[in-house]
Amino acid sequence: MEISERAKNTQSSPIRKLYPYAEKAEQNGKTVLYVNIGQPDIATPPEAMGMLKNFDKEVLAYSPSTGYYSLRNKISNYFDKYRIDINAEEIAVTTGGSEAVLFSLAAVCDPGDNILVAEPFYANYKSIAQMLGIDIKSITTRIEDGFHFTSKSQIEEKIDERTRAILICNPSNPTGTVYSHNEIEWIVELAKEKDLFIISDEVYREFRYTERDFVSPLHYREVEDRVIVTDSISKRFSSCGARIGFLISKNSDVIEAITKFAMARLSPPSLEQFLAETEFGLSDEYFKDIVNEYRLRKNAFIEELSGTDGVVFPDPEGAFYIIVKFTGVESEDFAKFLLQDFSINDVTVMVAPAKGFYNSKGLGEDEVRVAFVLTSSKMKLAAKILREGYFAYRKMM
Amino acid sequence: MEISERAKNTQSSPIRKLYPYAEKAEQNGKTVLYVNIGQPDIATPPEAMGMLKNFDKEVLAYSPSTGYYSLRNKISNYFDKYRIDINAEEIAVTTGGSEAVLFSLAAVCDPGDNILVAEPFYANYKSIAQMLGIDIKSITTRIEDGFHFTSKSQIEEKIDERTRAILICNPSNPTGTVYSHNEIEWIVELAKEKDLFIISDEVYREFRYTERDFVSPLHYREVEDRVIVTDSISKRFSSCGARIGFLISKNSDVIEAITKFAMARLSPPSLEQFLAETEFGLSDEYFKDIVNEYRLRKNAFIEELSGTDGVVFPDPEGAFYIIVKFTGVESEDFAKFLLQDFSINDVTVMVAPAKGFYNSKGLGEDEVRVAFVLTSSKMKLAAKILREGYFAYRKMM
Repeated sequence: MEISERAKNTQSSPIRKLYPYAEKAEQNGKTVLYVNIGQPDIATPPEAMGMLKNFDKEVLAYSPSTGYYSLRNKISNYFDKYRIDINAEEIAVTTGGSEAVLFSLAAVCDPGDNILVAEPFYANYKSIAQMLGIDIKSITTRIEDGFHFTSKSQIEEKIDERTRAILICNPSNPTGTVYSHNEIEWIVELAKEKDLFIISDEVYREFRYTERDFVSPLHYREVEDRVIVTDSISKRFSSCGARIGFLISKNSDVIEAITKFAMARLSPPSLEQFLAETEFGLSDEYFKDIVNEYRLRKNAFIEELSGTDGVVFPDPEGAFYIIVKFTGVESEDFAKFLLQDFSINDVTVMVAPAKGFYNSKGLGEDEVRVAFVLTSSKMKLAAKILREGYFAYRKMM
Repeated sequence: MEISERAKNTQSSPIRKLYPYAEKAEQNGKTVLYVNIGQPDIATPPEAMGMLKNFDKEVLAYSPSTGYYSLRNKISNYFDKYRIDINAEEIAVTTGGSEAVLFSLAAVCDPGDNILVAEPFYANYKSIAQMLGIDIKSITTRIEDGFHFTSKSQIEEKIDERTRAILICNPSNPTGTVYSHNEIEWIVELAKEKDLFIISDEVYREFRYTERDFVSPLHYREVEDRVIVTDSISKRFSSCGARIGFLISKNSDVIEAITKFAMARLSPPSLEQFLAETEFGLSDEYFKDIVNEYRLRKNAFIEELSGTDGVVFPDPEGAFYIIVKFTGVESEDFAKFLLQDFSINDVTVMVAPAKGFYNSKGLGEDEVRVAFVLTSSKMKLAAKILREGYFAYRKMM
């Protein structure tokens, strides 16, 4: 018996596949700086963690399929400051942001349909699409443009008769790009003109280092029934292991469809919904401190690396990632080299080869993704190891 | 813009759709006995709940995609008493048993493929299959046969060129059937003869009221690479809200495929894996007490209801459900009648109409499913309300 084609075609995570090399480096006595994965070292808010200890129910029971009303209500209040008017009935709590993407794609696409996604993109979009029999058509963006869209036609020319939605990640993992007012408007116009949904993954909404206001497709009333926003507490509140995400839609057909999918898996984790409820009650001061911390980390990393011959990167506008081009390397080989053959005072670094974030073959071969998930001094050291490692690697070429 | 066909075709949960009527009954001052849903009132093991309070990590981080090794190791030990030899690498922890079913179906079926399932079956199988573009072909079993298979050919004649797997739920939700040695052997033989996978959902493994040994397809070495067992802590340890399930396969291609799907959703909930680890360490005494409690509930219910003219049911051999036929009723109408128009001392009952558990139109119209999730005295009262309600309903017919 054979496994399914969809299983065969699903790729391994480009973020996780080099772990065996990192393990070996550690066995050889090296310290590895893990900047390959978006697992922040920031503490989960202690007030929220404390709530777990106060949980006093006898039975850990199912929650409603789309989450506790009290949590959905807190989420609805949180959007006030973004001037986005959402009520609890337009929100479905999901098991992580991943399930929000899974349900959104399943609600708007049938097998054989396609969605447009700017590449490089979060690799799991592809795995989720493959699981559902959906194709991804990629709009290639370039490092020289800060991974921004350069024209409306660049997006439009990829639309065909099976295209059902445009999926954006804003601020973007893996590029750190925050889309401009113009870019969002292009997408909004195309959704209207070509009768498409817009799926807007906004898990990094707070993580922005520009002065520009945040623009969501949900700000455009004329397409509000076409927009599905996916979101998560994982990064925002450093609660990755909680597996609490959510999605928003003002389209009642979409919410009804997603409720049916949600019923099929019964409920998201109950206990962590109380954690999330506490987190959405935190003051804005919480975000200020966190975003400032990530800004310092980002700056420490790029200051150390800037001016290096052959090394190209944009200054990330948001999220906590950067794509760095090391001209001439084959990035998976370079990543392995760093883990196997290079260190400074027995410290080395693990990065994610960026080609796994591209859909088009041959792109991103000399790029890596770095996550600002360690302290500023460690990020500075990671940059130094990357620079010196690059010099050493080039000598061998 | 239109939502997807798969979303339109997905049914609402037959277990949950009558809640608005129950809410109204409560608003009218009635007490509702909820025997429609498998949410036990049994306490989650206090030792395991206590573990949540002792959790002292600062960051609630992702776990490995297929779960913590320590939990998988505990699960592997638990299977010793069933004489099933499984190692931690053959286990993947999932977000509830539902995700174990989702991943299993995605791993073995492409869109347009089909699986065989005995009807009546757990309704969420259909929703999950629909999400993945997979068809369900049902093997109809009858209440008069205790919902057992009656011959190998009954199963065989449903197999066609797109059939990829036979899915069984053993002990069965919603019927309470525990398959015999013979029935499992028919399935094992057909898997070999027709080159099929066997997906065996065994979340109720401990819940058996017969003296027969439990037989899993995994006991048959000759098909061990064809078997995927899905499982969950939800019912076994009354931990429905924890969302911890798992699956087992000795086929490395299947485990590799499922690991890729698991990576796409990052990880199951972290905290509850520690809860599950404590639970799998409980002694067999724990199960004895629980199973005995369910046996008492079942007996209280069927003793009260037996001998009622027009009421037909088998004595459930396992799980904690029973399908009851009320000859002549339309069961959804009957369920609404109980909530709206009938009560004894202001107490009424909510049941799940059974037609939602059938794939074939027209079947199960006069059957309901009852879950033994309340104390014996409440189950006895539920049976009394059903009997008297049935008499009252018949008078109106």
